[in-house]
Amino acid sequence: MVVEGKLLGSIEAGGTKFVCAIADANFNVIEQTKFKTTNPVDTMAKTTAFFQQFNVSAIGIGSFGPIGIKEGQDDYGFITKTPKVGWSDFDFVGSLKAAINVPVFFTTDVNASVYGEYEFGTVKKDQTLVYFTLGTGVGVGVIQGGSFVGGRSHPEIGHIILRKHPDDVNFAGVCRFHGDCLEGLASGPSLAARTGIAGENISDSDPVWDIIAYYIAQAAWSVTLSFRPDKIIFGGSVSGRPGLLSKARQQFAQMNNDYLPLPDLDNYIVHPKIENNGSATYGDLALALFALQKATVK
Amino acid sequence: MVVEGKLLGSIEAGGTKFVCAIADANFNVIEQTKFKTTNPVDTMAKTTAFFQQFNVSAIGIGSFGPIGIKEGQDDYGFITKTPKVGWSDFDFVGSLKAAINVPVFFTTDVNASVYGEYEFGTVKKDQTLVYFTLGTGVGVGVIQGGSFVGGRSHPEIGHIILRKHPDDVNFAGVCRFHGDCLEGLASGPSLAARTGIAGENISDSDPVWDIIAYYIAQAAWSVTLSFRPDKIIFGGSVSGRPGLLSKARQQFAQMNNDYLPLPDLDNYIVHPKIENNGSATYGDLALALFALQKATVK
Repeated sequence: MVVEGKLLGSIEAGGTKFVCAIADANFNVIEQTKFKTTNPVDTMAKTTAFFQQFNVSAIGIGSFGPIGIKEGQDDYGFITKTPKVGWSDFDFVGSLKAAINVPVFFTTDVNASVYGEYEFGTVKKDQTLVYFTLGTGVGVGVIQGGSFVGGRSHPEIGHIILRKHPDDVNFAGVCRFHGDCLEGLASGPSLAARTGIAGENISDSDPVWDIIAYYIAQAAWSVTLSFRPDKIIFGGSVSGRPGLLSKARQQFAQMNNDYLPLPDLDNYIVHPKIENNGSATYGDLALALFALQKATVK
Repeated sequence: MVVEGKLLGSIEAGGTKFVCAIADANFNVIEQTKFKTTNPVDTMAKTTAFFQQFNVSAIGIGSFGPIGIKEGQDDYGFITKTPKVGWSDFDFVGSLKAAINVPVFFTTDVNASVYGEYEFGTVKKDQTLVYFTLGTGVGVGVIQGGSFVGGRSHPEIGHIILRKHPDDVNFAGVCRFHGDCLEGLASGPSLAARTGIAGENISDSDPVWDIIAYYIAQAAWSVTLSFRPDKIIFGGSVSGRPGLLSKARQQFAQMNNDYLPLPDLDNYIVHPKIENNGSATYGDLALALFALQKATVK
């Protein structure tokens, strides 16, 4: 298929903001726009207005969840049950296609990110990658054998149960479903709930980072045992804190206690290779190309 | 390929005992033998002596671990680092093939079990299955998209960290690497360590089963979030305790707290379909057939 001259679209559909981008077939971003996530009607109107300026050939969508990502299932293309007002049972793909009828690839924001790191993050193509985002929530995407992991639906590893840090036993956590699951204990809002200070204003020397590092280490240990990945990538605003992954690697080594042979931890528990939170955009664009190629060979 | 008339072999290589079987190409077991696992030389001599009585065409091996299962890696076919005396770095496949040079499929005991349930347990072929064995140790095998899950090596989900049950906080656990990981808290030896009574002699009404059920529920929750499976199967001597899975389902429902849509739990957290601990044997035989077919089309 000739893709030269085609334009690819990316929608990063976050619970807080949408980022839409247009790129050429070599993944050079031509134009990008960001706007606040409000109600689905207004938000989709802005999204379609952006893409209607271009002759876009395919769009990759990395969405906040939970969402229906299995083609053929009734909920495919929908935001499913979300606390975000107005978005439960919203037909995302259907409403986009009603305005712009091009091939789309619809997946989670973290699947898009892990795919971006897989395609452009200089890893070998047979590698198993796990991508965590620690921000407003905690999401996890996994790629193995070139495919996203997930049977009935996408992983929900943000809600694993952790052993509490001794200095954190009285903190109830902020997850509205589970209280003190991973998301309840290590998302951005958990920092403000513990300290009364917004996460970005907490000093690097605050002991809360030792607690977060312990939970990151447990999260890394859990996916190590489940998937035996080649790399575990921590993105999102919380993970970017200087020194945090270094602390987590130390805790992780203690958890392993020389049981599993592991790569050098500095190259195993890592930040994204793609800078400026770009993993999801590049992942979306690569998935748009995938959708375009799939539609063409039909 | 004509498989009619061919004989298939199964080796269930357990840390306590070996079970070897011969079956016809329709998976009817013709002969079976069991013996104690001693040192590798004597144990392999008994194994090869059994198979040399037959004109076996291929052998499936489900072994205790950790083992090297990735063809092309240096440790493929080996038992790797095990506390079991004499078995560390033992070349299992090499020593078998030196005596009986037929195609083999070498995987973990729990991968063999999950494959048996996948092939013969009346599930649909696109389903994602997780198989736990709770016995002397805790092992986990996962199949998704028809393939075993595991990147650099096989899963080691037996060593996940659990939140302790309030009535179990002072129990240190029995895992020699991690103390109170899943294996340290829910394997057979943990029962004797807590109560002073061998697991099989503990009464059904003992409160220790509430503790074990809580850990089984956490294990099921962890793999639910990681793999979004269609079914989670609990085999092994501990899991067989009457009423235990029923208690675990109740705890599991509380953990989910209506977050994820799930199938009826009675059909989700289940015992093996294949009776009398036969999942591994049938899995080995099916994997032997797979190895034979693969070798033939080369």
